[in-house]
Amino acid sequence: MQLSINRELLLKAINLIAKAADKRHNMVVLGNIKLEVTEQLLILTASDLEVELSAEVKLGNGATGVIGATTLPAYKLHEICKLLPKDTMINLTAEANERCIITSGKSRFVLGTLPASEFPVLGNPANITPLTLSRAVLMDLMAKTQFAMAIQDVRYYLTGMLFEVAQRQLTTVATDGHRLALARSVIDVADDFTMQAILPRKAVVELERLGNELGKLVGDNDGNLTLVFGREFLQVTLPFGNVDSTGEIDDSIKVTFTARLIDGKFPDYRRVMPNNTDKIALVNKEQMTEVLRRVSILSNEKSRGVIFKFSQDGNVEVRANNAEQDEAVEALQVKYQGEPIELSFNAAYLQDVLDVLAGEVQLNMSQANSSVLVNQLNDTQHQYVIMPMRI
Amino acid sequence: MQLSINRELLLKAINLIAKAADKRHNMVVLGNIKLEVTEQLLILTASDLEVELSAEVKLGNGATGVIGATTLPAYKLHEICKLLPKDTMINLTAEANERCIITSGKSRFVLGTLPASEFPVLGNPANITPLTLSRAVLMDLMAKTQFAMAIQDVRYYLTGMLFEVAQRQLTTVATDGHRLALARSVIDVADDFTMQAILPRKAVVELERLGNELGKLVGDNDGNLTLVFGREFLQVTLPFGNVDSTGEIDDSIKVTFTARLIDGKFPDYRRVMPNNTDKIALVNKEQMTEVLRRVSILSNEKSRGVIFKFSQDGNVEVRANNAEQDEAVEALQVKYQGEPIELSFNAAYLQDVLDVLAGEVQLNMSQANSSVLVNQLNDTQHQYVIMPMRI
Repeated sequence: MQLSINRELLLKAINLIAKAADKRHNMVVLGNIKLEVTEQLLILTASDLEVELSAEVKLGNGATGVIGATTLPAYKLHEICKLLPKDTMINLTAEANERCIITSGKSRFVLGTLPASEFPVLGNPANITPLTLSRAVLMDLMAKTQFAMAIQDVRYYLTGMLFEVAQRQLTTVATDGHRLALARSVIDVADDFTMQAILPRKAVVELERLGNELGKLVGDNDGNLTLVFGREFLQVTLPFGNVDSTGEIDDSIKVTFTARLIDGKFPDYRRVMPNNTDKIALVNKEQMTEVLRRVSILSNEKSRGVIFKFSQDGNVEVRANNAEQDEAVEALQVKYQGEPIELSFNAAYLQDVLDVLAGEVQLNMSQANSSVLVNQLNDTQHQYVIMPMRI
Repeated sequence: MQLSINRELLLKAINLIAKAADKRHNMVVLGNIKLEVTEQLLILTASDLEVELSAEVKLGNGATGVIGATTLPAYKLHEICKLLPKDTMINLTAEANERCIITSGKSRFVLGTLPASEFPVLGNPANITPLTLSRAVLMDLMAKTQFAMAIQDVRYYLTGMLFEVAQRQLTTVATDGHRLALARSVIDVADDFTMQAILPRKAVVELERLGNELGKLVGDNDGNLTLVFGREFLQVTLPFGNVDSTGEIDDSIKVTFTARLIDGKFPDYRRVMPNNTDKIALVNKEQMTEVLRRVSILSNEKSRGVIFKFSQDGNVEVRANNAEQDEAVEALQVKYQGEPIELSFNAAYLQDVLDVLAGEVQLNMSQANSSVLVNQLNDTQHQYVIMPMRI
């Protein structure tokens, strides 16, 4: 394999995919990036067997090569590209003895390689279901729910995000068992089409990152993405070529994202949604955020519990105390409808929800030991459930 | 003790001193800040028994109080001040039952206190030697040498910085046994005056921080500071009041920095300075930095060794290799005087020196296994010694 490529082009491609490489994986080759030169393409691939990112760069226009393939240590290759001067040409030559020589200007690097044949391929989705929707909508569905995924849980499906299609809506749901976040949007599918898939945490994070990178590139000329769901995999191809004056992206670079889906049954979120919420408080996001941050300074370091006492006159007392008997109390005025109620949440859970909402936020409550439904005023496309806690 | 104080004034004082508090110290009270109201002053003190920072705020003009003293958890008090709204008044009342009540607007906090009598005092320097010098000079002496202090060493004196006065010069020296940094400046003392003191790492860091804060406040109207060295302590008082239109600072806030000196004998740095350096290379700081960063990607992860080969024609080959047999080589041109030489350093040590120098940098060498003396062209006030390594 041989390759001569403009440093900016190579760095752009590596930046897009390198995060998928995993230096600490048992399979050493997963710490490497696979480089493959075909007749027309340079293909760079990084993978941890959960998420595979592959960048296809058209040869010509800044890159030429001789057919072949190898794998190079991801971190070292990335650092070398980053630290070489701008707008230089980088030449890579894979030698027979598991060595690759990289030269550029007066620099010369010799890196150990592993055979491309050792690099595992995740495979392509089978029995596919393509869903096409606007990039901005997909980003919103993920960004407004991802914080509620469990970090670590034996119920492995809780560490991912549910993608569900039913009644012509795509719904994303994340829950760690203590709180739940849900977002949905109408998409263009057949009336009777339904599906469910659970995307693991790392895949959610990487798809969000790529989607945001694409958003920076296209700016206001936002387009659609197609999510190709298979039985085991989700695959999405995103264009990252040059943007012309009309906002069109050419196909000089594209990235294919492939993620292994979580094989499990996501909890039925409908059963978790509170009903009979006859007590409704309308709070200002900024005001509540400030109060919450101050009061929670003195909340219990582990439980982060904060007590809310709503009175019929709209006065809310927010209170916290900790193991050292410190106490914080603050009063604020809100719009309130219903009988007085006192209940406790984890301050961080409410804060996470406030962070993704704006303006006036509605807390829909029923009783002290029942979950609270939170949503932005006049928006039922984003819904949040927080379990109460005993203090 | 009672205190009513403008939030900005209290936050400014806490910001200046809070870093000295140590939440993880065996003496629990050192996680607290001592607040003392006297007839004319509010005095805030934080300490870890190595460094004590004390802010004196004049009462009147944004602060009033009733005489008394208490101690409050540093982190919690700091967070409360930070998160209260701007330009509010904060009221503190120390109660008899080891509780302090803090109120501001509709917020009320009750914090556990510890008696002010439990808070240890570092004590004042005895047999004092005051040294007065420009703040900017002191900052330069510390900033240009502090990186060479040992992080951890059984030879405890190496974890600090030597301050030495001799021949009307103040010299600072730091060394971890592998490299040494030295900076000096003429100061206004008697011809025959000499002294030596070793300031511990944390004291160096805090004195630099305070000096830099003061620099931001005074801008171009830089003044002098007086270092009061005693047998056991260094004490420096820095003004932090309001700056008037002529650049004068009033005494509405001042901070007293007290640090316990390291009781030990610093190595004689004169014996470490290389002589017979008959091979002199003049390298450009930016160019060498770039080469070094690239080549050291493939240096040994632990030793960070990089080999330099100087030829008489001024060609330098910089090379590194690691345990995985990767190799990096780069050539650059420098001005060189002397026989050819090949020697190795830790790349990070040379980089640290390049980071504090500018323009043309001189490497003064004698033989492959002898130390290298590094300095900026035409500047002998800042000198650096790097020990070679065997690769």
